[in-house]
Amino acid sequence: MNERLSQQLAFILELDKEKNVFRQTHLSGHGRAENDAEHAWHMAVMAYLLREYANEPIDVGRAMLLCLIHDVVEIDAGDTYAYDAEGKKTQHEREEAAKERLFGMLPPDQGRELAALFEEFERSETPEARFARAMDNLQPLLLNNSNDGSDWVEHGVTAAQVYARQRPTQAGAEQLYREVTDVILRTHVEKGHLKS
Amino acid sequence: MNERLSQQLAFILELDKEKNVFRQTHLSGHGRAENDAEHAWHMAVMAYLLREYANEPIDVGRAMLLCLIHDVVEIDAGDTYAYDAEGKKTQHEREEAAKERLFGMLPPDQGRELAALFEEFERSETPEARFARAMDNLQPLLLNNSNDGSDWVEHGVTAAQVYARQRPTQAGAEQLYREVTDVILRTHVEKGHLKS
Repeated sequence: MNERLSQQLAFILELDKEKNVFRQTHLSGHGRAENDAEHAWHMAVMAYLLREYANEPIDVGRAMLLCLIHDVVEIDAGDTYAYDAEGKKTQHEREEAAKERLFGMLPPDQGRELAALFEEFERSETPEARFARAMDNLQPLLLNNSNDGSDWVEHGVTAAQVYARQRPTQAGAEQLYREVTDVILRTHVEKGHLKS
Repeated sequence: MNERLSQQLAFILELDKEKNVFRQTHLSGHGRAENDAEHAWHMAVMAYLLREYANEPIDVGRAMLLCLIHDVVEIDAGDTYAYDAEGKKTQHEREEAAKERLFGMLPPDQGRELAALFEEFERSETPEARFARAMDNLQPLLLNNSNDGSDWVEHGVTAAQVYARQRPTQAGAEQLYREVTDVILRTHVEKGHLKS
């Protein structure tokens, strides 16, 4: 087997570890914690099904790809909870090191390509990245909504924190923000699941 | 919220259940059983990374999409192990009923679209479907190879059974069949992990 294919297969096997990176979000039906791989899968299918709500014309295949790879660095860097202020301080540094090691396993052209896709997502540089980030916000919101906001209650999260986190959805899918995100958040503020 | 968006969101929440459909394949490092959602995610990323090996020119976004949705019907129909002869007898009937109920939750145009994509994959009708099916074979093969073939040993699977299952990879990615699939299978036959 040539070196290129051998590097690709080694990276693909390494990706398997993303299934063991667990998030703070729980599956619907008050299920177990969700892992990064299934979160990324769910986001990518959502991007396809909800593509008509993108603010700008998008290449949906590219938006799906951004969804699929956006958490790969967490294989090394771990998941940083959206409302973990301490973790956020070191997140960038941890993810930079992870990017170097993980994408460095690939043939150089593909390593550069994946690093560029990761950065495109992080920086919300393109219509596809803005829409993929909207999916990244909306996906756990839908699960948490189905579980009576239990993830917020458990962590004592405030409405202001969640709104700050969710607002970027507007840049990718204004209608979904207005008709889904904002409606869900108001309901949980009223019910006291989100602290004022 | 209008009915269309409401139907889309209900289907998206239903999709969450795919994370609780477990397969016979185990994660690398002799890990837990893999679920359908993370299997689909892994296949989709593989389709992107290995697209240069497709026998025919493919729209990689479409191949990724086929990977992502190919197991949705298992939410109702359950996973049928590749070497379960009894289960195979009722698989088609169970999956037809599942297709009707699940895709019927979507707005009619999207329900038809997903059913058509599912059938495209099942029938290997297009270059994208043939390549996606190659990924469906290759993904568990790589995991099982990394675990010394333990899934085959556990089920007492024969080399003939595995070759019959893996041969369609040739139709999607001849080079991967020759340089990866066949090489892996020969090794496990030699080591006695696969019965003659």
